[in-house]
Amino acid sequence: MTRRRRSAARRGAPGIKQLPWTRVRNPYAPVEVFTAEQLDKVHDASMRILEEIGIEFMSKQALSMLDKAGAEVDHASGLVKFDRDMVLDLVAKAPSEVTLRPRNPEHSITLGGNHINFGLVAGPPNVQDRVNGRRQGNYEDYATLLKLAQSLNIVHLIGNQPTAPVELPAHTRHLDCYAANVTYTDRVYHCSSIGADRALDGVDIAAIARGQTREDLVDDPAVLTIISVNSPRRFDGEMADGLIAMSTWGQCVVVTPFTLMGAMTPVTLPAALAQQNAEALAGIALTQLARPGSPVCYGAFTSNVDMRTGAPAFGTPENAKAQLAAGQLARRYNLPYRASNANASNAVDAQAAYESEMAIWGGVMGHCNLLYHGAGWLEGGLTASFEKVVLDAELLQMMAETLKPIEVDDDTLALDAIREVGPGGHFFGASHTMERYETAFYAPMLSDWRNYETWLEAGGETAEVRATKIWQTLLENYQQPEMDEARQEQLQAFLARRKEELSKTAA
Amino acid sequence: MTRRRRSAARRGAPGIKQLPWTRVRNPYAPVEVFTAEQLDKVHDASMRILEEIGIEFMSKQALSMLDKAGAEVDHASGLVKFDRDMVLDLVAKAPSEVTLRPRNPEHSITLGGNHINFGLVAGPPNVQDRVNGRRQGNYEDYATLLKLAQSLNIVHLIGNQPTAPVELPAHTRHLDCYAANVTYTDRVYHCSSIGADRALDGVDIAAIARGQTREDLVDDPAVLTIISVNSPRRFDGEMADGLIAMSTWGQCVVVTPFTLMGAMTPVTLPAALAQQNAEALAGIALTQLARPGSPVCYGAFTSNVDMRTGAPAFGTPENAKAQLAAGQLARRYNLPYRASNANASNAVDAQAAYESEMAIWGGVMGHCNLLYHGAGWLEGGLTASFEKVVLDAELLQMMAETLKPIEVDDDTLALDAIREVGPGGHFFGASHTMERYETAFYAPMLSDWRNYETWLEAGGETAEVRATKIWQTLLENYQQPEMDEARQEQLQAFLARRKEELSKTAA
Repeated sequence: MTRRRRSAARRGAPGIKQLPWTRVRNPYAPVEVFTAEQLDKVHDASMRILEEIGIEFMSKQALSMLDKAGAEVDHASGLVKFDRDMVLDLVAKAPSEVTLRPRNPEHSITLGGNHINFGLVAGPPNVQDRVNGRRQGNYEDYATLLKLAQSLNIVHLIGNQPTAPVELPAHTRHLDCYAANVTYTDRVYHCSSIGADRALDGVDIAAIARGQTREDLVDDPAVLTIISVNSPRRFDGEMADGLIAMSTWGQCVVVTPFTLMGAMTPVTLPAALAQQNAEALAGIALTQLARPGSPVCYGAFTSNVDMRTGAPAFGTPENAKAQLAAGQLARRYNLPYRASNANASNAVDAQAAYESEMAIWGGVMGHCNLLYHGAGWLEGGLTASFEKVVLDAELLQMMAETLKPIEVDDDTLALDAIREVGPGGHFFGASHTMERYETAFYAPMLSDWRNYETWLEAGGETAEVRATKIWQTLLENYQQPEMDEARQEQLQAFLARRKEELSKTAA
Repeated sequence: MTRRRRSAARRGAPGIKQLPWTRVRNPYAPVEVFTAEQLDKVHDASMRILEEIGIEFMSKQALSMLDKAGAEVDHASGLVKFDRDMVLDLVAKAPSEVTLRPRNPEHSITLGGNHINFGLVAGPPNVQDRVNGRRQGNYEDYATLLKLAQSLNIVHLIGNQPTAPVELPAHTRHLDCYAANVTYTDRVYHCSSIGADRALDGVDIAAIARGQTREDLVDDPAVLTIISVNSPRRFDGEMADGLIAMSTWGQCVVVTPFTLMGAMTPVTLPAALAQQNAEALAGIALTQLARPGSPVCYGAFTSNVDMRTGAPAFGTPENAKAQLAAGQLARRYNLPYRASNANASNAVDAQAAYESEMAIWGGVMGHCNLLYHGAGWLEGGLTASFEKVVLDAELLQMMAETLKPIEVDDDTLALDAIREVGPGGHFFGASHTMERYETAFYAPMLSDWRNYETWLEAGGETAEVRATKIWQTLLENYQQPEMDEARQEQLQAFLARRKEELSKTAA
C-alpha cells in the first residue's frame, strides 16, 4: 500500500479516526492453563467419550457416511461411537490454515497460524441503541449493523445474522440476508447451515459476488458456517446436513459445541472441555468424510451458568480459562481455533466492558484465530447493540495495537533523545518526538482523555453516550462498496429464481 | 483453615459475597513482548544511559554514598555516572522475594516469585462517589477508603494516601494517616518517603502495631515505600533520603520511575523502557548501598500521553505492552515487580472498566508481584472513587479466579456424569452437579446476570449504580480490627510525642 492510500485507510469513514484494515497477528506465545500431562488427560477423556459414550447425529446422511467409514452406528437412536484412531486420522486430514476470500480480495481473512480475525455479533433477536431503544430486530436493523461493520476496519467478517429480520418470510429470509451481506459489505460472511439448501444459497451468492460459480469456490473458499452442537452430544439433523453440504463444497466449517458448564456439561472445567473436544472432533471428522482436506475450524464456546438461577454467564473467569484452554486443544490437533467475545450485561456499562475484556483477553491469549461475536453482543446474545459495536471496536483495536510487534533498534532506543533532555526535563519538543508524535501511539475512537473539568463542561458524557455519536457518524459517512453491474444483475436473477423455487416448496 | 472458618471468610462482610483472603499466585508462564535479543538491547541501552548520560541525585547523602562506592559523581550538578558492573553487582545483592508482615500476620504479603498482591488506590487529591459527588478529599474520606479496603479481601495492602486529608496540618498529617492505617486496617501499608523522618515515623507505627520496635523490623519487614523517580533521570532530594532511610531499616523500597512516553521519555517504547530501567536500577543500587540485602521491588509505570494535548493516558495498548515488557526486565535482574491498575476515565463507565482491564491483564500476564492502585483509581489518578473501588474489586477477584489452578482428575473429568446425561439433555440435576454447584463457579459481587426484563423491572441499574449499594453495605458492616489496648496507648503516646516534636520544628 502506498503512503497516501495507507493514510486514507487510516482515516476510514470521514470524521471517525480508526485503524486501517489490518491482518492482525499474535506475536506472543499462547498462555496455557493445562500442563502437557493435564492436556493428555483431557484428550484421553474426550476419546473415551467418543469410544464409550458416543455422539448422536440426527441425520440419515451423516449416519450413513459414518457407518461406511467404520464407526459403530446405531441407526435407530442415531448414536455413533468412534474408534479414536479413526477420528484422529480424519481430523489429521483437515488443513491447519485456510484463507477465505470475499468479493473484495483485500478483505480476505486467514484462519490458522497466529492470525486473528474479529467478527460482527451474530444471532440476536433484539436490537438496542440509545436513540430508538430496545426492540425486536428487522431488516433495516440488519442492514444498519452491516453498514457499521463495513465502516469499521477492525471488523473482519460478518457472522450469522447480526439480528433476525423477522418481518421477512421465513423460507426466503436467508436469501435477503445473503444479498444484503454482499451488497452492504465486501467482507467474508457466514452461511446458515440449517439444512444444505440454505447453506448452498449462501455459497452461490458469494460466488456471484466474486463473478464466479459455486464450482470455482471449492478450492478457493469464500465463506464459513458455524455448526452449533446441541450439547451434550447431539448434532441436529439440519445442522449435520448443512455441515456436509458446506464441506462437500470446500467452504469453512466451524464446529462449535455450545457448552455452558452446569447446564450442557458438568460443572467442572476439565469435563466441559473433554465433552467440547469430543463433540468438536466428531463434527470435524464428519467434515473430512464429506471432503478430505476441506477447511474447518475448532470452535469453542464454553462458559458457565449462574447456578442459583440457571442464567447464562459470559466473560467470567471460567469462560476466560476455557478460552485459554480450548486453544491448547485446537493446537494439539493442528486446527484453526474459534473463540467468542460475549458478556451478560443488560447495558453498555462497566460490566459489558469488563466481561468483554475477560473474553477478549482469554481468546486472544489462547491464540484464537477467529473471535466470533467480536462486536455488538449484549445481554448474553439476546441483543445486538449499536453502542456496543462501537465499544467493542475500540476494545478490538486496542488489542490489535497491543499485538503489534516492537522494533528495537538505535532509532527506537533513542539514546540521543535521552541525552538531549536534561534531568527533570520533558520530551515534548525533542526532535525525536516531533518526528514521530503523530503516529507514535494508538489514537482512541471512544476513550476520552480530557481532564474532568473540560470533560464536564463538554457535557460529561459517559462512553456509552459518546458511542451513540460515533455510530451515527459512521452511518452518515457509510459508503456502499461498489459492485460490477453484471454481477448485480446476476444476483437479482438468482434471488428471483430461488425465491420462486422456495415459495413453490413452501406452498 | 477449617471448613467453617473458610466459609465465614468467604462471606466476608455480611451481605456482600466475596472471595476469602487469598495469597494469589500466577500459575501461567509470563507473556513476553521482547525476544531475548531485544531484551539484551534494551538492557544494554539502559547500561549506556547509566554509564554515559547519568542520573541526577538531589541528595548530598546519596551522592556521598555513591561516590564512596566508586560511581563517577559530579557533586555540583548532582549527576552520577555508574559503571555497569557496579550497578549490576549491587542489584544482585537484592533479594528476589520479600514477605511483609503487618500487625495481623494472616494478612502478610509476599512480593516475588509468582505471588500477586493488589493495593488500594494511592495519592488522589479528590474523592468521588454517587451520593456525595466529587470533592477534595479529607480525613473522613481517607478513613472511608481504608474501611472499604479492610472490608474487601481482594485488597491486600494500603498504598500511599488513598486521598490527601488536606484539612489536617501538613507537617503532622502523615502521622494521622499512619495511625488511621493501623487502626482501621490490619494490612501492610505504605510509608511516605518525602524525607527520612516521615518514612521512619511510618516504620515506628508499624512496629508499635506489631508490639515491637523499629529494630525488630529490620530483618522482618512490615511496610513498603514507593520511591517515585522524577523522570527523566532525577531523584529528588527528599525521595532519595527517604529511600536511604527505609533501606537502612530493612523495609521494602519500590523504585518507580513515572515515565509517560512523549513527556518524561521519548515516544518509543524501547527508549521508555531503557530509561525506566536505568532509573529503577540506579535507585535499587542505592538501596543496596544503604543496606545490602535490603528488600526492594522493581517499579514500572510506563504509559503514554495524548500527543495532541499532553494529557496522560492509562490502560492504553502502549501501557499494556509496557507492563508486559517491564516484567521481563524485572525478571532479568531477579527482582520482584510492581505494575499499576490505572485509567483516564472521568466516570465509572465502560472506559474505566476497559482501561483498567488492559492494565490488569498487562500487569498480571507480565507477572507483576504488586499491582499498585489496584482498586479505586479514576481520572488518571486525580480522584479516588468509592464506586471504582467496588468495580476494581470485582475485576481483581475475577483475575484471581482466572489464576486458580485447575485440577484434572477422574473427579473433574466426570465421565460418569457425561455418561448419565443423554444427548440434548441437561446437567442441572446430575448428582455430580448437585454435589458441587454451590462453589463450582465464581459468584460475582457486582455483575448482574438477570435477564433484561427482570433487570429492568428491578430498576435497570448499571454497574456504577449497583456499586453504590455495595460500598454502602460494606461500610455498614465494616468491623474495625481489634488491637491490644497497650499497643493503642503506645500508639497514642508516640503520636503525641512526635506531633509535639514536629510542631516545635515547624514553629
